[in-house]
Amino acid sequence: MKKIIVITGASSGFGALAARALANAGHTVYASMRETSGRNAPQVKDAEKYAADHKVDLRTIELDVSSETSCNAAIQQIISQNGRLDVVVHNAGHMVFGPAEAFTPEQLAELYDVNVLSTQRVNRAALPELRKQRNGLVVWVSSSSAAGGTPPYLAPYFAAKAGMDALAVVYSRELARWGIETSIIVPGAFTGGTNHFAHAGHPADAARAAEYDSGPDAGLGDQALKGFASIVPPDADASAVATAIVKVVDAPFGKRPFRVHVDPTQDGAEVVNAVSDRVRAELLRRIGLGDLLEPRSYGEKSH
Amino acid sequence: MKKIIVITGASSGFGALAARALANAGHTVYASMRETSGRNAPQVKDAEKYAADHKVDLRTIELDVSSETSCNAAIQQIISQNGRLDVVVHNAGHMVFGPAEAFTPEQLAELYDVNVLSTQRVNRAALPELRKQRNGLVVWVSSSSAAGGTPPYLAPYFAAKAGMDALAVVYSRELARWGIETSIIVPGAFTGGTNHFAHAGHPADAARAAEYDSGPDAGLGDQALKGFASIVPPDADASAVATAIVKVVDAPFGKRPFRVHVDPTQDGAEVVNAVSDRVRAELLRRIGLGDLLEPRSYGEKSH
Repeated sequence: MKKIIVITGASSGFGALAARALANAGHTVYASMRETSGRNAPQVKDAEKYAADHKVDLRTIELDVSSETSCNAAIQQIISQNGRLDVVVHNAGHMVFGPAEAFTPEQLAELYDVNVLSTQRVNRAALPELRKQRNGLVVWVSSSSAAGGTPPYLAPYFAAKAGMDALAVVYSRELARWGIETSIIVPGAFTGGTNHFAHAGHPADAARAAEYDSGPDAGLGDQALKGFASIVPPDADASAVATAIVKVVDAPFGKRPFRVHVDPTQDGAEVVNAVSDRVRAELLRRIGLGDLLEPRSYGEKSH
Repeated sequence: MKKIIVITGASSGFGALAARALANAGHTVYASMRETSGRNAPQVKDAEKYAADHKVDLRTIELDVSSETSCNAAIQQIISQNGRLDVVVHNAGHMVFGPAEAFTPEQLAELYDVNVLSTQRVNRAALPELRKQRNGLVVWVSSSSAAGGTPPYLAPYFAAKAGMDALAVVYSRELARWGIETSIIVPGAFTGGTNHFAHAGHPADAARAAEYDSGPDAGLGDQALKGFASIVPPDADASAVATAIVKVVDAPFGKRPFRVHVDPTQDGAEVVNAVSDRVRAELLRRIGLGDLLEPRSYGEKSH
């Protein structure tokens, strides 16, 4: 069945790939991004061309995840055009690279904003509709770092993604009785196929960063990057994340996996999450809230 | 050996208990808090009385973790009074309770500020001295929720604590070669002995909260609170966290545990962290950075 889907951060990387893959699968997909008439105008044109060439329903929409007003406007536009919204994919994110101590508190706040508050703004815009429908799916593009390997010099990013993953887990419980399902996609490091590393931000406190560069940690940044790259297999393909998202969306309601790992580096997240998701399920059952582990079905409308 | 110690959020709860326990163990302890001449003036008097009655070196100091200026001033004062700083204990934190969707993005930002950016401000104030000394200990008071059970209606808090735990893990790697050791204390839920639950903040979006109160999740807040309380054993004692901190501080350099769990509820964090800390160690070894798992010793100065 054709679904109405919005995906954030869809100008490039996992987001752009997933938007195309979902449109190919027959869905109406809103590839959302900011600056659609500015910096991202070429990405809008690309998406339009893709839609025309492949005869699929891929649309773009202005949505700046850092603005509550923009999130509300975009989601309202989608709902008014389609009379419903079936799937929200939280994909927008940004990375920084450097010694933790050299980032200002303001930089950590900004990174939490783009990776986590972004999802809160989109949720607060979209969930009233999904709750009203008593049906929907929320897909979170988390990170293997939230459970698995965490090399140095990515602390502010890892902190934000760990926060996002925690938020996803608790939201899933609170939305279950409303008939809203949750799937968390857990990508490992892909050093190619996305601009994640290339576009990574740097510490604002250059003097502090220089102390690390000339002290006992001299060279650690390069070691971490090279080490990271060395464990990404040459055939690692970022489109595997898009494929995983399509599979989740197309699975029947109530049968979607809570997590899907797509981690060619095998950094251990799959091992850890298998344990943590089980002990968390155990805790809910222990306190009499085991029903929150599955979305409630409201009958035919559920899909 | 007597150590110079600063602990944040020491006006009440774990922080106040740990400050007293560390002073009892013979250390010079700065119990830091905000509003020492305002709201927390009684707490300052309490600490003074405790120090006099027990003939221990417990001091209080003005430190507002939300202010970079305040963090810098407090830490500089400690260093100028003692010529060094040995141990930083990140304990300050705040909790909120309610449906995730009913919290504004600004509330999530505030909660990340008090639980996570607070540690960044204190680290940026203190770590230059610890790095110069090539010696020191950073103790983080994390939360079992970052790995174990996460009941509903605590999403913004769990997200922040998961971020704090991730930050602690990466900082430990980046500080190891500087001779700085890290221990993460992982308390479970203590519904007594701290004001954590009593002082919890509430969602700013009351209309949204009301939708949850009257919809399929009606009663979920009470169910979660009662369920949580039901798994805290009656003999759960918040002072066990203080005892754990003293034990970590008094352990020899290089031999301190990376994590100590103090979780009477046994919510699963101990199980999950045992796995995650191992797979994270494995990843570092795989990329040739296994040395980051232990603090480098710079000889006699290390303690």
